[in-house]
Amino acid sequence: MPTLKRIAISVGDLNGVGFEIALRAHNDIKQYVHPLYCISRSMATQAASLLKQALPEDFECHEISGGFTIQPGIVDAQSGRYSYASFIAAITLAKSGVVDAITTLPIHKEAWMKAGIKYVGHTDALRDLFECDAIMMLGCEKLYVPLYTEHIPLRDVASHIQTDPLVSFFLQLYQTTKHEPIAVLGLNPHAGDHGVLGDEERFIEAAIKQTNAQIGKEVFVGPIVPDIAFTPRFRERYTMIAAMYHDQGLAPLKALYFDEGINVSLGLPIIRTSVDHGTAFDIAYKGIASVQSYINAINASLRFVSLQDY
Amino acid sequence: MPTLKRIAISVGDLNGVGFEIALRAHNDIKQYVHPLYCISRSMATQAASLLKQALPEDFECHEISGGFTIQPGIVDAQSGRYSYASFIAAITLAKSGVVDAITTLPIHKEAWMKAGIKYVGHTDALRDLFECDAIMMLGCEKLYVPLYTEHIPLRDVASHIQTDPLVSFFLQLYQTTKHEPIAVLGLNPHAGDHGVLGDEERFIEAAIKQTNAQIGKEVFVGPIVPDIAFTPRFRERYTMIAAMYHDQGLAPLKALYFDEGINVSLGLPIIRTSVDHGTAFDIAYKGIASVQSYINAINASLRFVSLQDY
Repeated sequence: MPTLKRIAISVGDLNGVGFEIALRAHNDIKQYVHPLYCISRSMATQAASLLKQALPEDFECHEISGGFTIQPGIVDAQSGRYSYASFIAAITLAKSGVVDAITTLPIHKEAWMKAGIKYVGHTDALRDLFECDAIMMLGCEKLYVPLYTEHIPLRDVASHIQTDPLVSFFLQLYQTTKHEPIAVLGLNPHAGDHGVLGDEERFIEAAIKQTNAQIGKEVFVGPIVPDIAFTPRFRERYTMIAAMYHDQGLAPLKALYFDEGINVSLGLPIIRTSVDHGTAFDIAYKGIASVQSYINAINASLRFVSLQDY
Repeated sequence: MPTLKRIAISVGDLNGVGFEIALRAHNDIKQYVHPLYCISRSMATQAASLLKQALPEDFECHEISGGFTIQPGIVDAQSGRYSYASFIAAITLAKSGVVDAITTLPIHKEAWMKAGIKYVGHTDALRDLFECDAIMMLGCEKLYVPLYTEHIPLRDVASHIQTDPLVSFFLQLYQTTKHEPIAVLGLNPHAGDHGVLGDEERFIEAAIKQTNAQIGKEVFVGPIVPDIAFTPRFRERYTMIAAMYHDQGLAPLKALYFDEGINVSLGLPIIRTSVDHGTAFDIAYKGIASVQSYINAINASLRFVSLQDY
């Protein structure tokens, strides 16, 4: 039997749904990965007892200091601090090669703020900690949506559509995913309708040509008319659709596959995947949170690890 | 038995799928509307014979001159001219009160161009012929998406987000649909995240407040975070979601309900609905075109007629 890949799991905000998802999915994911949970055994036992469960023997914990009393659904500095420590531990394990990848469970932004942590979220922290840019990609096996621009005002999007940075984005995307073909959306309605409704498509078209020439095959296809790119006919042909901006890609993606979605950071020195939902404080420790996004995130970690092995 | 509402149907480009859709759906729609087809009896007979069918006795035709030989799948000036004449006849019947509404089947832009017709499509023609603005709304009973801006470059969208024109749009939308509640999307990712990712949401918020105050109830709700507005949880609450721009609304709508979608022009002196697909020349007269969008368009005509009756 081959050795399973090791994945460090940061448990997220312990007042939220993260831990119960990890616990419920444990017997499933241990079939194909070796999970290492970034939480102290005593905190894990406390969380499990709130769910009226015993901690499985093989629930391997990586000790995190700073125990506290879990209060389901409460925004709390201690819980925020612990979730950050869990996240940093997971990163450290990945950097040092103890694990092959990390999967993060949701933290609470306000809890981080209360704990005096300067980042607004995981991606923000990762970029700063690694001092490098990363591609944010959301989705599931049926459909991945990498974003060319992300958290910028809509009015600033058009000026970012330039050939050279698009080529860099496309190359990094192909190098990190090895996916093909990749559909690329236009920027404007009807992809500009031959320039009548905007002409940024000429930069996208030029970048696609240059990138494909560099790669030596027709990996990138487009620019595709944005409002028909997510219809069944296109989804049959493309399981990766690169969007020029946040809502162009994520509104249709979440309309179709909300519960299954995960978040991947591409281009970091480590592989990191995440669930695509929040702490869901309102249903914490009620045993009803869906494990689908988490299981998909674990599987995606595995997939991106295997890409790096080549 | 109450008198059925009369709907004039423009048959679209006779070299495309329009006529076979009308013919196949005839026995269905005549149960609840009185259809009047804008086509000569001889052309209808020719089209039916291509489908190896006889024209039903009760297939009531409104004579259009300019007969020609139908060539399935061919872009042709004569066919373009005939589709325009059919469309104009339908409008004329509605303006004079002979019918209560019109439903249009797809025309071919290039065929109109070849025929020397100056409009690029139905909506363009309607605005010019009636010299008034109209709201373009797409969707189906499960989800309607009216558009605040439509066929403009993405780079120009943000500057259109201003309180006064938004109030006019909201008021016209409510007056013509009587729908409530109506969700309104923000412009920016995360609806601006309190101004960090763009601040046009303040105009949208002000316009919603002013409109609701004028109407006297909380009809409009928002600004909603665009990328979660089309997830199942929101779709349960809102069956009408107003979008600030073309792809923001239409990409998720078409991802979800492509085959069922229709197009409505709101705010014209006449009621006009349309299928939300093209001439589909590649499958014309093969008997496989879907009638769903057409049946939904007929039903929507009926619905908007009944709103005007109050």
